Amino acid sequence: MIETGHIEALKAIVGKENVYSDKAHLIAYSYDATRTRYEPEAVVFPRHEEDVSVILKYCNEHKIVITPRGAGSGFTGGALPTNGGIILAMEKYMNRILEIDFENMVAVVQPGVINMDLQKAVQEVGLFYPPDPASEEYSTLGGNVSENAGGMRAAKYGITKDFVMALRAVRPNGDIIRAGKRTIKDVAGYNIAGILIASEGTLAVTTEITLKLLPYPNFTKGYMGIFPSVESAMNAVFKSLASGANPVAMEFLDSLVVQALKEKLGVELPEDAGALLIGDVDGNVSQEVDFQLEILEKSFRENGAVDFVVAKDKKHREELWYARRNASPSITIFGSKKLNEDISVPRSLLPKALKSIYEIGDKYGFKVPCFGHAGDGNIHVNVMVDGSNPEELAKGHDAIEEIFELVVSMGGTLSGEHGIGTSKAPFMSIAFNEEELTLFRDLKNAFDPNNILNPGKMGLPV
Amino acid sequence: MIETGHIEALKAIVGKENVYSDKAHLIAYSYDATRTRYEPEAVVFPRHEEDVSVILKYCNEHKIVITPRGAGSGFTGGALPTNGGIILAMEKYMNRILEIDFENMVAVVQPGVINMDLQKAVQEVGLFYPPDPASEEYSTLGGNVSENAGGMRAAKYGITKDFVMALRAVRPNGDIIRAGKRTIKDVAGYNIAGILIASEGTLAVTTEITLKLLPYPNFTKGYMGIFPSVESAMNAVFKSLASGANPVAMEFLDSLVVQALKEKLGVELPEDAGALLIGDVDGNVSQEVDFQLEILEKSFRENGAVDFVVAKDKKHREELWYARRNASPSITIFGSKKLNEDISVPRSLLPKALKSIYEIGDKYGFKVPCFGHAGDGNIHVNVMVDGSNPEELAKGHDAIEEIFELVVSMGGTLSGEHGIGTSKAPFMSIAFNEEELTLFRDLKNAFDPNNILNPGKMGLPV
Repeated sequence: MIETGHIEALKAIVGKENVYSDKAHLIAYSYDATRTRYEPEAVVFPRHEEDVSVILKYCNEHKIVITPRGAGSGFTGGALPTNGGIILAMEKYMNRILEIDFENMVAVVQPGVINMDLQKAVQEVGLFYPPDPASEEYSTLGGNVSENAGGMRAAKYGITKDFVMALRAVRPNGDIIRAGKRTIKDVAGYNIAGILIASEGTLAVTTEITLKLLPYPNFTKGYMGIFPSVESAMNAVFKSLASGANPVAMEFLDSLVVQALKEKLGVELPEDAGALLIGDVDGNVSQEVDFQLEILEKSFRENGAVDFVVAKDKKHREELWYARRNASPSITIFGSKKLNEDISVPRSLLPKALKSIYEIGDKYGFKVPCFGHAGDGNIHVNVMVDGSNPEELAKGHDAIEEIFELVVSMGGTLSGEHGIGTSKAPFMSIAFNEEELTLFRDLKNAFDPNNILNPGKMGLPV
Repeated sequence: MIETGHIEALKAIVGKENVYSDKAHLIAYSYDATRTRYEPEAVVFPRHEEDVSVILKYCNEHKIVITPRGAGSGFTGGALPTNGGIILAMEKYMNRILEIDFENMVAVVQPGVINMDLQKAVQEVGLFYPPDPASEEYSTLGGNVSENAGGMRAAKYGITKDFVMALRAVRPNGDIIRAGKRTIKDVAGYNIAGILIASEGTLAVTTEITLKLLPYPNFTKGYMGIFPSVESAMNAVFKSLASGANPVAMEFLDSLVVQALKEKLGVELPEDAGALLIGDVDGNVSQEVDFQLEILEKSFRENGAVDFVVAKDKKHREELWYARRNASPSITIFGSKKLNEDISVPRSLLPKALKSIYEIGDKYGFKVPCFGHAGDGNIHVNVMVDGSNPEELAKGHDAIEEIFELVVSMGGTLSGEHGIGTSKAPFMSIAFNEEELTLFRDLKNAFDPNNILNPGKMGLPV
């Protein structure tokens, strides 16, 4: 428990208007997208990096637990104060785009900047920040870095880590660390930025992010492949990519999602649509776009596609994407609660992985609608349960465990983009052996020997 | 000093034919491309990962220093046994391409595989491994990972770290660690592969590397821009890239290199050539190649280029590249020894950086021919000295120090691709503050508490 004296000390650091400890605010900062709740003991708003340093140093000396928080939009509990202590909330002050350096195609931002705000700001000068997690309208770039967020465009452009050139961060002892440079190449010293990305706020607190930007592509077109079965669509994914296709996005919707879209939202889709692949292709020249569409159509049809639709214009493209964007809300017809996991496997194993996942669902008696980023092998697997039935919830978790065991046995991962946090922590021992878990603990201890930063996340000790 | 008993123990692990301790072999494994020499006490050839694990465990228990070694082609001493102990040489057994997985566009290799051998093997099935360090004909992929090697194609395709999907590695205590997956996305657990890349053999010994491959591009064309001055060429670099050009390579040769090519090799270049930019563009369709060439020509001419040449055919392209490939051997006309550094700055600062570097050269009375990977801001700066004159050598090192201070003050780095090793270790305190150096030591200690792996490299403790 934090003593009153500590609250006063924190107020002395950041000003009393920047520390909340009243019940209403503690509740407001107690949740994230997992819909579970843990109340912090105080919410502190640092005004700048120096505040972060002084707060961390103070908390480290007094062994006060800190949970850094962006928008609280994570799916695995990374921003939940599961062990009390303080929430370090970046959204109030540390939310500015500091610089858009057009000449070097670089942006420098504070961690509280919302992903889409950066996308829009750089697009105004003809530049492009590709990572587009589904939470792009509200998630922060600090959170994106902490979880190494992916998105639709990862198939062609990669994920957050592929765009981070440099970070500034504060260690628990208050040390301010600069990691990386505004240069394309930098091999001086250990790759500290590389280890901070995806560390879920357990090693240091990010205070500044330098991001690589690209020229905005001149031409983009949407496409949709309609397949009779999940298997044919999954074959088309890896075969089209191995044939040289390089789509911006290649999103997958399975038969259950297709059914849900028709039933719940009245989306008009062909009778024989058993699975869809929806995406975009882009290029500097229109011929590159045509080249991509040709490879996709040829490969899709060779793998059994019953139709291949190219968006005629922007409006038509939005219509194709409507199905993908509404996949998640539509599938509630199969159960009041979805146990949503984001497994990833080598793409050639997608057909086998999906088949086995449905079999696990059948065994437990759950519908398991699947959709997501097939182009990079990352599928959102949704075990649909009755959320009000504790027995069914427990069975759902057993099904999830079996799915993870399957995925890991195929060389896949527990998480393609959501992270581990608290919700996947129980499954870490499926994916990692004792030596690997020991290394994680050793690393954590090197950065944070007093274990004040987000303890207990990622299966690390409390 | 290693005792005879230790040599016998190592022979018992790998077989007596795989441990050398005779003088001839100790000399053979005492050097690298820095041309400095340190003799090891034994050379050990592990046959497989299990050998590496048992050797490390043994050496860790007996505090025997280990220097892992690929081809010994590094420029900064990473593979030099500066503190004696054993060389762990990967070239004899751990040199196989284990798998080329066409369906997932992935290669799995042992660390002793030579870079070009992989490039050729994957090209045979239509795939592409872009990282092409100048040492590609002899450097190993294990070494490339340890130093995070760059190359000509980094401007478009990135560097080694951008292609490493997963590693297997052995910690000094013998623990075998799997880091990463054969999946595009993986955010489960800390990014261990990210921290092992560029760690110069100080944290763990790499035993297996999983690399991302791309489709081989259909069209490639070479180009050369001829500029009246270094300044105009440097302006053209960042302005063309910010205009949307995305060349595979954009290599720079300065006025001194142009002079050396004419004088030493008789290369025919225009009278008014004060600097050159040479490179390739590629694409899936010929129109993309034309698009790239148009942007480059327009931007080059706007920045004062006196000519822009597009290679008519493969032979002509080789002729354009001849100048670049012979830059390094030609500049010996300016001094018997080159102090070769590979600084990197944000690209828009290249004109200012080069101007200041020449001024430093003038101040010390040295010619400083510069060339290299301007497209990613990474320039090879060569302070030419009389290698037989110790006083001049010392002065040369002072000039290098001043150049590093300049580069770091501009937001640049000590090394774009060569690493720190021993040769740049004295300059680490220019680039990093005490807090950052402390973090490096903490990280090293977390992996290697007995400090047996490559001690003293990167400015870390001996």
